[in-house]
Amino acid sequence: MDLHILDHRLRVTSISRGGLQHYTHPLIKLIFLRNRTRCKFFSLTETPENYTVVLDEEGFKDLPPSEHLQVECSTWLPLNVVSNGNASSSSQAVGVTKIAKSVIAPLAEQHVSVFMLSTYQTDFILVREKDLSVVIHTLAEEFNIFQEVDGESVPVHSQDVNNGLQGNGREVPRSTLHPVLIPANQYCVMSLDPDTLPGIATTLIDVLFYSNSPKEDANVTADLECKFFSFSLIDGYVSLVMDTEAQRQFPADLLFTSSSGELWRMVRIGGHPLGFDECGIVAQISQPLADCDISAYYISTFSFDHALVPEEDIARVTDMLQDQRKGVGC
Amino acid sequence: MDLHILDHRLRVTSISRGGLQHYTHPLIKLIFLRNRTRCKFFSLTETPENYTVVLDEEGFKDLPPSEHLQVECSTWLPLNVVSNGNASSSSQAVGVTKIAKSVIAPLAEQHVSVFMLSTYQTDFILVREKDLSVVIHTLAEEFNIFQEVDGESVPVHSQDVNNGLQGNGREVPRSTLHPVLIPANQYCVMSLDPDTLPGIATTLIDVLFYSNSPKEDANVTADLECKFFSFSLIDGYVSLVMDTEAQRQFPADLLFTSSSGELWRMVRIGGHPLGFDECGIVAQISQPLADCDISAYYISTFSFDHALVPEEDIARVTDMLQDQRKGVGC
Repeated sequence: MDLHILDHRLRVTSISRGGLQHYTHPLIKLIFLRNRTRCKFFSLTETPENYTVVLDEEGFKDLPPSEHLQVECSTWLPLNVVSNGNASSSSQAVGVTKIAKSVIAPLAEQHVSVFMLSTYQTDFILVREKDLSVVIHTLAEEFNIFQEVDGESVPVHSQDVNNGLQGNGREVPRSTLHPVLIPANQYCVMSLDPDTLPGIATTLIDVLFYSNSPKEDANVTADLECKFFSFSLIDGYVSLVMDTEAQRQFPADLLFTSSSGELWRMVRIGGHPLGFDECGIVAQISQPLADCDISAYYISTFSFDHALVPEEDIARVTDMLQDQRKGVGC
Repeated sequence: MDLHILDHRLRVTSISRGGLQHYTHPLIKLIFLRNRTRCKFFSLTETPENYTVVLDEEGFKDLPPSEHLQVECSTWLPLNVVSNGNASSSSQAVGVTKIAKSVIAPLAEQHVSVFMLSTYQTDFILVREKDLSVVIHTLAEEFNIFQEVDGESVPVHSQDVNNGLQGNGREVPRSTLHPVLIPANQYCVMSLDPDTLPGIATTLIDVLFYSNSPKEDANVTADLECKFFSFSLIDGYVSLVMDTEAQRQFPADLLFTSSSGELWRMVRIGGHPLGFDECGIVAQISQPLADCDISAYYISTFSFDHALVPEEDIARVTDMLQDQRKGVGC
């Protein structure tokens, strides 16, 4: 398989719920007015806590600093796995499950933090720019690695980069098993032709910028609904993740999902905000999902991580998570 | 003819050019999200100086105070003339010309300031609430006057209101003849089905909120282009005034204008900001237009007044304005 290091330098930011309205002007430009921006990688995810905005440096320039904006200090690079026909995996599962053993687990073992961003089209694995040499060394055995430079894919050889591997003798701390929540919502993962984006503009603007009920409680407990809405526009491809209640507000003829029209349930990972430095969080859930061959989208946000699994598999996933907490395998 | 005092209590405000982006959130709600606001009278006019926003008290609540927002301190009420078939005028002209002699001139004589807002559908004459009794006394001879209260039209008799007429003996100062400018732009006055407003959302947002080139010079001289864009959504009716350059950005199938598809030229009135207290400014131009039977839309803004006249009449209007400055009639 091929691994591409994409030509985007990304920032991970968070806008407070109350502060979003102050960012309406730049965000509407980044979402709808492609002629007015050179931003090529933009993702906005609403959770009950805040709005996570991941975007390239061109887009980041448009976000004025304020007390409403938090910025993670690193530059992140997106990696993308491309199956080129000779994939060894016989798995039918999609999403993060497919790369759990080949990418997620090895990076966790090397103490590399990852920020995952699954979309309708593909899964982006964001790593810190400063970790790139470790990433390349770690994944070079399994993958042909290419770095995209000005639209060209240039092969990268692991001997070309400084070896930044962690000493093998160093003890890898066992990562914490984080509490998980499984809200009642059913989610869909959708896309639309970017040329028809203007057709959903007023609905999308309404849902993103005006649906923030002031009485909404930011505390989510297991049985409650969980507000989660994700929009991304990356290299011209649009991806949307929303619950079925939000979906009903959109014109049915413009959004599309896969032909089987699956619904997804969410596993929200983290009892308190996870931060960006702990390694192995994605591995913790994607490994057992891979063992059970259950598809999963995975979306990291500023505070928590979110895995989306097929609705029909949620009982197995719940059992698996309980077993994991008792120390039993799938 | 009937004169209706409409059931809207209006505020006249101005947002600075640099400050508009801070008002993107409330303005997009007022323009596009009718389910989220109880505002029924909204008008936004861009000029080279600033953005004039006229809106009812429900809408005004949505504009947070800031150093970018100026608010005229009065409450204004919109008047509307309804021809009910027995109109005495045989004029074919439309717009402010039609009401020049019956409304504009008498109010000017009584020292009542008016703020005009012509739309595709009709012409609103805004008067200060405190001037209402004078207005009623002044216009009661010519009009059947109705006050709209909770959707009902209630007849108003001039003896019911306090007589606030200016003493007849008082000298009426001759009003200043203001300098005028006639920019080169051709304008169109258009409308669209409010249900298709979402179809022009991204274009309208782009034109209103993102076309403000920073190098733009706020000084307009006679031969230059003059940025002027007006959008109003009043009682469910949409009206747009824009120049032909802006018009080309909109989908041609949604906006409509009258069947004759006229183009209009603008007479901008005022060498320095006019303020709100001088009377007779509208009369100064609408009277000679009425004498010559030339149609005109008239849009007041926070700083200047703007008359739109048919392109084929602009030479006559120019002559008329020159003669006026020499003290000669039409």
